[in-house]
Amino acid sequence: MSDEIGSRTWAIAEGYIPGWSHGPEPALESHETCCVLNASDRDAELEIMIFFEDRPACGPYRLTVGAQRTFHLRFNDLRDPEPIPKETPFASLIRSSVRVVVQHTRLDSRQAANALMTTMAHPCD
Amino acid sequence: MSDEIGSRTWAIAEGYIPGWSHGPEPALESHETCCVLNASDRDAELEIMIFFEDRPACGPYRLTVGAQRTFHLRFNDLRDPEPIPKETPFASLIRSSVRVVVQHTRLDSRQAANALMTTMAHPCD
Amino acid sequence: MSDEIGSRTWAIAEGYIPGWSHGPEPALESHETCCVLNASDRDAELEIMIFFEDRPACGPYRLTVGAQRTFHLRFNDLRDPEPIPKETPFASLIRSSVRVVVQHTRLDSRQAANALMTTMAHPCD
Amino acid sequence: MSDEIGSRTWAIAEGYIPGWSHGPEPALESHETCCVLNASDRDAELEIMIFFEDRPACGPYRLTVGAQRTFHLRFNDLRDPEPIPKETPFASLIRSSVRVVVQHTRLDSRQAANALMTTMAHPCD
Repeated sequence: MSDEIGSRTWAIAEGYIPGWSHGPEPALESHETCCVLNASDRDAELEIMIFFEDRPACGPYRLTVGAQRTFHLRFNDLRDPEPIPKETPFASLIRSSVRVVVQHTRLDSRQAANALMTTMAHPCD
Repeated sequence: MSDEIGSRTWAIAEGYIPGWSHGPEPALESHETCCVLNASDRDAELEIMIFFEDRPACGPYRLTVGAQRTFHLRFNDLRDPEPIPKETPFASLIRSSVRVVVQHTRLDSRQAANALMTTMAHPCD
Repeated sequence: MSDEIGSRTWAIAEGYIPGWSHGPEPALESHETCCVLNASDRDAELEIMIFFEDRPACGPYRLTVGAQRTFHLRFNDLRDPEPIPKETPFASLIRSSVRVVVQHTRLDSRQAANALMTTMAHPCD
Repeated sequence: MSDEIGSRTWAIAEGYIPGWSHGPEPALESHETCCVLNASDRDAELEIMIFFEDRPACGPYRLTVGAQRTFHLRFNDLRDPEPIPKETPFASLIRSSVRVVVQHTRLDSRQAANALMTTMAHPCD
């Protein structure tokens, strides 16, 4: 039954890694996060494409989220094929080998007190 | 007609209880909340499973939301079978005996001014 | 075509009017808002029911949103049949005579800098 | 396959451009944003209608989002047929020639620390 939780394709139209931070790292470092819940009994193989305003998309970034696990990926930490530049608008498309649930969160600590925002990503299938 | 409001399975991929707070409790204590609306005429028996990044899921946590009632559950308050650790990424899956609506909210008061975020959970059936 | 924008029943499981504010009113008064877009060519007659944790639901609160208009209702401003108490968890169910789109927003200015959160309400038909 | 990502009509019931800002522009200028992801292989021609509480809708505002690109439009920047007034509740309806994904974000820096909120827009087809 848990194999039927979520979708295999998710989109996030917003994306932006703030350029600086205020407060102790890593908890209060400004970050852009893609939270994935894999409630199924099989590992989820993910491929993430990153879209920009003024150049071709890059990726896929690949990662595995274990069966019955969650993973809160910071876009800040992506390295292969290339880091995502800070202070640059982007968007993302996440494809998974099994159904998962994807949620988008940003913590912005550029000013003295941090700001937060979150939304479910948009399920595309 | 109110028995048709919402879904019986909801997922929240994001979850994190901030490690400290700033401001008067309980209103401004940092908290992670799962708000449930049961607009039906029958009590809703809920089972919540909590998923982690690096260990098996725990639960079910059980609670009842009365007919024609709402309940704003703080994940901080869950005790049985075990408290949810602070400063630890998690995700949750909520199953209900009747249709309900579930919304996820965090209040983070680690810095001098509180931050808020909310999103509808993802309906899975 | 605009008569097909949105749904006629929406639910918001989260609801809470903060107890105090910091900053100039009305813009920075703490408030809980239900934003309605009526993109249709007919007026929308709305009925809102408010649900609580420990007592029966109250309502309906009635209002009209004109054809091709938006209305950003502050729950703080509801008076008939009764005001919604502050610092009290609630939830809401909005029914409309025509299709509309409903979004939930809170501005919380209890501390020195305001916090914001928003989400689309959950469409129920 | 990427031609099937998203919808062609999206609604955002909330809209408000804060009247002032605190912090370096343009990053921390208060703004209301409509983020669009066009994951398809064709350019997306967009038409945006803006709805108000007390006067007829205005628009369409037209823009193009290239194939395989994102665009993070600040409502603040719209000029033709007319700028959107600050400190005025509005709502928006976005129609696209191809499927896209739309997300709504506000950065409010009226007080000393900025606040953020985001949600997926509501897909209408």
